[in-house]
Amino acid sequence: MRYFMEFSYDGSNFLGFQKQLNVRTIQDVIEDCLTKINSNHKVVLVASGRTDAKVHARGQCAHFDLDKKIDINVLKHTLNQMLPKDIYVKKMKLVDNKFHARFDVIKKEYIYYLNVGEYNPFERNYVYQYNKPLDIVKMNEAIKIFIGKHNFKGFTKVEEEKDFVREIYEVQIIEVNNVLEIHFIGNGFLRYMVRNMVGILIEIGNNQKNKENISELFELQDRKKAGIIAPPEGLYLNHVYYQ
Amino acid sequence: MRYFMEFSYDGSNFLGFQKQLNVRTIQDVIEDCLTKINSNHKVVLVASGRTDAKVHARGQCAHFDLDKKIDINVLKHTLNQMLPKDIYVKKMKLVDNKFHARFDVIKKEYIYYLNVGEYNPFERNYVYQYNKPLDIVKMNEAIKIFIGKHNFKGFTKVEEEKDFVREIYEVQIIEVNNVLEIHFIGNGFLRYMVRNMVGILIEIGNNQKNKENISELFELQDRKKAGIIAPPEGLYLNHVYYQ
Repeated sequence: MRYFMEFSYDGSNFLGFQKQLNVRTIQDVIEDCLTKINSNHKVVLVASGRTDAKVHARGQCAHFDLDKKIDINVLKHTLNQMLPKDIYVKKMKLVDNKFHARFDVIKKEYIYYLNVGEYNPFERNYVYQYNKPLDIVKMNEAIKIFIGKHNFKGFTKVEEEKDFVREIYEVQIIEVNNVLEIHFIGNGFLRYMVRNMVGILIEIGNNQKNKENISELFELQDRKKAGIIAPPEGLYLNHVYYQ
Repeated sequence: MRYFMEFSYDGSNFLGFQKQLNVRTIQDVIEDCLTKINSNHKVVLVASGRTDAKVHARGQCAHFDLDKKIDINVLKHTLNQMLPKDIYVKKMKLVDNKFHARFDVIKKEYIYYLNVGEYNPFERNYVYQYNKPLDIVKMNEAIKIFIGKHNFKGFTKVEEEKDFVREIYEVQIIEVNNVLEIHFIGNGFLRYMVRNMVGILIEIGNNQKNKENISELFELQDRKKAGIIAPPEGLYLNHVYYQ
């Protein structure tokens, strides 16, 4: 039986989503619980994608297979009882065996939170404490450059990936009480891509760079030219869209 | 030279405000920094009052004396650089030597945050995760009973205190996205008093008690009859008022 779940996690005390030896990761913690529920037959959690250390999720999605059919409300409740307080399952449902949480993604939304006002000790793990003003008019001009299909090789760490082209559908900056919420919707995001996009937006907002540097980076495709990478604690995987 | 400061702290990783041997408290951490600034002559921090383990403050106030006059902006900046990330000095000023941060308080505001919606892992240390609905109409009726001068012996832990009479000026419940913010303004608050008031309000909201139980408790003056005490993580010392 294949199950689908949507879940949130506070990434502060995790070394990221993906399984790693001897460190606390989200995948490890959830798989341990699911394996117990599955009478100790190993369960593998397939998520929509990874998130890095300290990055949060409000709407991460995954599928997994269990040997038996369990009532989804009972399963959701049991799993939430077993999970630590920094992970919470929001939705659980049965899906077709052909459903795949990574391959079937059609788009994703990330939000980056950035405090341009005074330092806030309560949000130090949840909002990047930049604590200096930024030129939002300039940043709002610059975000338009991201829209469309581009080669994001200059915005990622060159790894196993071969295809660096991604399409961005929407970028939006909302300011709420001195906190900038930068929304990104796209068909997919490479590793560090959102944090590099936010990094260059910060440098544009503080007049170290301008919007032409984004187009230049699309052409040069060189991470070394990308500049700063925004810290992980401001980043949230907000929503994953399926058909 | 006497200095006044207003500061905020995330109480999650402190065993309360007041100095204690071998545990991390807010007073200890700040006094250590101030003593270093004061060329290692011991500095004592006198706050408006204590807060308990895991209780937060957005506007705690205190005074302290330094041997020398230091520019207040420099002092604020230096202290913030030295302090850990869960304490932040918001305001610093020079005051008259007769000013006293505890005795000169005229009123205080506490706010208690309580989630009556779905569990939120990001707010587990900042909002009490009650996660069940409450009858807010009934609670709004009950809060009126608190207004005025009352003997709050039934709402505190009997300790050194002799005078249990306090005056409550204002109680208000605001609901924002399934989070109840319960505001209390009064001339002073006994230990556990706000958390006991919130405790009985929760029991009124879930129909285990009714508003008459509050008046009863004012008459009986017996903590054993008070019922549940709301957990510390939802409580904030929001503002201290001076003349």
